[in-house]
Amino acid sequence: MTPPSQIERLIVIGLGLIGGSFSLSLKAAGGCKEVIGVAVNDVIGQEAQQAGLIDQWVLDLSAITPAPSARDVIFIAVPTLAVRSVLEAIKAANVGADVTITDGASVKGSVERDAIAVFGEVPSNLVLGHPIAGSEKSGVSAAKEGLFDQHRVILTPLANTDHEHFERVRQLWQTIGAEVLTLDVANHDAILGATSHLPHVIAFSLVDTLAHDSHNEDIFRYAAGGFRDFTRIASSDVTMWRDIMLANRDAVIDAIDLFSNNLAQLRSVIADGDSEQLTEIFGRAKTARDAFIYLLDQKENQR
Amino acid sequence: MTPPSQIERLIVIGLGLIGGSFSLSLKAAGGCKEVIGVAVNDVIGQEAQQAGLIDQWVLDLSAITPAPSARDVIFIAVPTLAVRSVLEAIKAANVGADVTITDGASVKGSVERDAIAVFGEVPSNLVLGHPIAGSEKSGVSAAKEGLFDQHRVILTPLANTDHEHFERVRQLWQTIGAEVLTLDVANHDAILGATSHLPHVIAFSLVDTLAHDSHNEDIFRYAAGGFRDFTRIASSDVTMWRDIMLANRDAVIDAIDLFSNNLAQLRSVIADGDSEQLTEIFGRAKTARDAFIYLLDQKENQR
Repeated sequence: MTPPSQIERLIVIGLGLIGGSFSLSLKAAGGCKEVIGVAVNDVIGQEAQQAGLIDQWVLDLSAITPAPSARDVIFIAVPTLAVRSVLEAIKAANVGADVTITDGASVKGSVERDAIAVFGEVPSNLVLGHPIAGSEKSGVSAAKEGLFDQHRVILTPLANTDHEHFERVRQLWQTIGAEVLTLDVANHDAILGATSHLPHVIAFSLVDTLAHDSHNEDIFRYAAGGFRDFTRIASSDVTMWRDIMLANRDAVIDAIDLFSNNLAQLRSVIADGDSEQLTEIFGRAKTARDAFIYLLDQKENQR
Repeated sequence: MTPPSQIERLIVIGLGLIGGSFSLSLKAAGGCKEVIGVAVNDVIGQEAQQAGLIDQWVLDLSAITPAPSARDVIFIAVPTLAVRSVLEAIKAANVGADVTITDGASVKGSVERDAIAVFGEVPSNLVLGHPIAGSEKSGVSAAKEGLFDQHRVILTPLANTDHEHFERVRQLWQTIGAEVLTLDVANHDAILGATSHLPHVIAFSLVDTLAHDSHNEDIFRYAAGGFRDFTRIASSDVTMWRDIMLANRDAVIDAIDLFSNNLAQLRSVIADGDSEQLTEIFGRAKTARDAFIYLLDQKENQR
């Protein structure tokens, strides 16, 4: 059965974890008739086609024939700071205002700024979005069907975002099982700066600290299972996360500062041997974390 | 078949995750004939007996009849800062030098200091140890057979530690599948301060920071799966971890300072928008973490 919202062609620019998983999932759900990948080179294009992520590939958006039309959707799935050059390519290809364009970059403020720089304003057919799903793995081989199933996607529409284009993007995500929420751009970047970008900064910094400790040789040998989980995100894609930190610089710096202040306070509580205060801080954190997990588990059980 | 190293009675002081899991595992492996629990109250004793962790319980070590002898082993499994009062109880009960005593506290320097304070020196039959296994769960109900299987246990013998008592403890751990390593006390505390205590400080501090952020209501709602793993250890037992921080204060403060310096450097790299430097730091961390996981996986596959 054809889903009512089936589109003609999905054009995916960037064939890594996010773009590849989106393609696979949408194809599996019958949400599009064809997927065309815009690959950075032939090796990637071939690998993605062989893995079944895409039906065909081009190296340049303007090589797609017939040109993108109102029944097609362009999904930009490149690292955050590469979005600008993609927007330039979209402009150069004269993509019409009737073509729905959306993206999956982790920072929305920088995409908004890039779109203004390229087009003078954010085009009304560009719907900014960000799936809250990922993995420390990256690249074509990391793509998997169902990555977004039961995960949240945050769309950050602007005042001039066209309602029909917005609805189309919302339906695409719902077709592959995602739960769509909306936030304004600044809120999105502040919240993700705290809950996602800050933890990555911390994880990279912790592993870098330990790798340069004088106990280096021994240090990882005696690490426990908790260390494996705690540092998982330090295995994430370097370019992607470098881009995120630079693109969301102000919010990330704010988050680092809030955390550093808290850590400095905790340090002096430990240095003072203040048992009572330490119990209070640890207890407060455990309560907050347990409550978060409780809600998460409840939600998962409801599904 | 009776293992050659089977002991008569295991006396476990403290019936939480570590003591309970040790008892269950040793019973299952036929490593002892009987387990006597020393419980903090009757409710815990009864719960532990009903859960099959122990065969009987007492509230006071000196109530055990017949008194502990050379065929018995005492395992101290209470939070680190409660070890001293247990050592006082052992002294008060006149436990003989032929009884093997060991512990599972996370900090070895503080147990050494406590033993010196109570006995004048660390008794030669007290073998300091620390299993590198745990969980964010705690208490009688968290105990499980096999918790230490394929996990490391670090023993930190002192110059006067009796060889036979040491070997006995080593065999007990091996009986339940653990891999026994030795370290000196100071090295153990420095390494664990960096790889275990520091990550817990960071996790508690991060969750506490976010829970008090102005975006509080939204903040956990938009957290991704990585956040769940990253903050798992912030759900750990509050008393246990308060004790560890206080007991290993100097090493923990050193580790916090090393990390804070690294984080401050990373912050200025981000603030400066230094893309090249950021790529180098993240890349270095990813390489170190990937190498650690590769070795860990290889080890696991060999088993």
